[in-house]
Amino acid sequence: MSENSKNILLKIQYDGTNFHGWQKQPDVRTVQGEVEHVLRFIAGYDVPVNGTSRTDTGVHALGQCCSFTWDNPLPTDKLADIMNRRFGAGGLGRSGLPGDIKVVSADEVDMEFHARFSCHGKTYKYIVDRSGDIFERNHVYHYGFALDHAAMREAARLAVGTHDFASFQTAGGIPRDTTVRTITDITITEEDNRTIIRVTGDGFLYNMVRILVGTLLDIGTGKKEAQEMEEIIASTDRSKAGFTAPPEGLYLEEIYFDDEFKRGGGTCTK
Amino acid sequence: MSENSKNILLKIQYDGTNFHGWQKQPDVRTVQGEVEHVLRFIAGYDVPVNGTSRTDTGVHALGQCCSFTWDNPLPTDKLADIMNRRFGAGGLGRSGLPGDIKVVSADEVDMEFHARFSCHGKTYKYIVDRSGDIFERNHVYHYGFALDHAAMREAARLAVGTHDFASFQTAGGIPRDTTVRTITDITITEEDNRTIIRVTGDGFLYNMVRILVGTLLDIGTGKKEAQEMEEIIASTDRSKAGFTAPPEGLYLEEIYFDDEFKRGGGTCTK
Repeated sequence: MSENSKNILLKIQYDGTNFHGWQKQPDVRTVQGEVEHVLRFIAGYDVPVNGTSRTDTGVHALGQCCSFTWDNPLPTDKLADIMNRRFGAGGLGRSGLPGDIKVVSADEVDMEFHARFSCHGKTYKYIVDRSGDIFERNHVYHYGFALDHAAMREAARLAVGTHDFASFQTAGGIPRDTTVRTITDITITEEDNRTIIRVTGDGFLYNMVRILVGTLLDIGTGKKEAQEMEEIIASTDRSKAGFTAPPEGLYLEEIYFDDEFKRGGGTCTK
Repeated sequence: MSENSKNILLKIQYDGTNFHGWQKQPDVRTVQGEVEHVLRFIAGYDVPVNGTSRTDTGVHALGQCCSFTWDNPLPTDKLADIMNRRFGAGGLGRSGLPGDIKVVSADEVDMEFHARFSCHGKTYKYIVDRSGDIFERNHVYHYGFALDHAAMREAARLAVGTHDFASFQTAGGIPRDTTVRTITDITITEEDNRTIIRVTGDGFLYNMVRILVGTLLDIGTGKKEAQEMEEIIASTDRSKAGFTAPPEGLYLEEIYFDDEFKRGGGTCTK
């Protein structure tokens, strides 16, 4: 690391439909792979990035973050435009990001900052849609049943707090030393033909938000009682919880970082 | 054709993004191919359909129509639901239409009706978007330039009427005996970050709407003068007109049929 090294935080949006998730893997299209491809093109050498969240295939992001270090002289405030440019001048040509990824902002941060380890919370948004609009099919979960929002909110209240969320974890994720997590807030709002569920917490187990949404939908349709949420959590048994809601309705909406890393007075989502 | 033969008119929506257009072709995914696949599954024999418009790759439809005859005893008012059903009972399983096609309505019509030959007009809608929203990239044309709508409307007025539209035709379409067409209306409206251009006429040459939109955009940005529309039409020279606007912004919105074929008091779009 040279004395000119800079630590850069990118905020990124993507439409997850045509990606095998965030994390780079051989032979498949991933968001991390595309971002690193463009950075390598600009820098002339490999630039590995740390993403805050490893979103799954089909899951979208409005505020994914990632960080990387380099000593490239490019002004950081020009970086987003350059990465997004697909038909630009300066020899970049078509080598910018594809149309389903967009860098929203690029900021220089303290060298100790790390997009994954400096994160202390995230908000996920889930969109349930009753319109059946075919043009939205990859960006919402088409679910035709009427939902009892009052029952869903009652159940959501029982899930907020610090609990062992082992019932809400799909096998196959990265092994964690604990399945205890803190959910700080769940909101359920209506908008036209949509139910929007937002879940904020300090971190989430593999598929935790999607299983939580599936359980809330089972409660919304009366398949389960709101009060069952308590037992489901206490059981630490995946089979007691509801179905895993599909990825197309899920958005990583916002990421929160420790105060000392904040620049420009905001979270990653500024 | 048996005495039980019925002539059926389907109104269809589709997201054209992942189709090689409407018309059936070997080895590629087309809307007609998918519709005929499902009808063959229901009928047990080949059911060729006539589409009103041969939309191109990437072009969408809100109100495409097609017609076909069969003697299947299935009640016509159940047909849309059955074709749309993907996880249904009755052995249909996943053999219904894919998520990017939807049958909006199915109606029995006179035996003389033919979706292509009975059509006397169509409306196309084109969406130009300045937001750059990546989630909309396949459903609008992302075009960042400010547009002079007054100039565009002035030019549009000059295009309305019966003209030889040879300047607005891409080579490669179905050979026609004449390039004279009648445009009955062009409207240009604003909506949030969008400019919506609607073109209604008795028929359109190959890429005519997209070249007309490209020409109107050239006028909207000042690259061409509104008055030039007259000369462009008079020249019958493709090189005088503007660029071909890309397919992702274009929707076949509505189709008009002769009165005598109307059922239920409406056009195909009811």
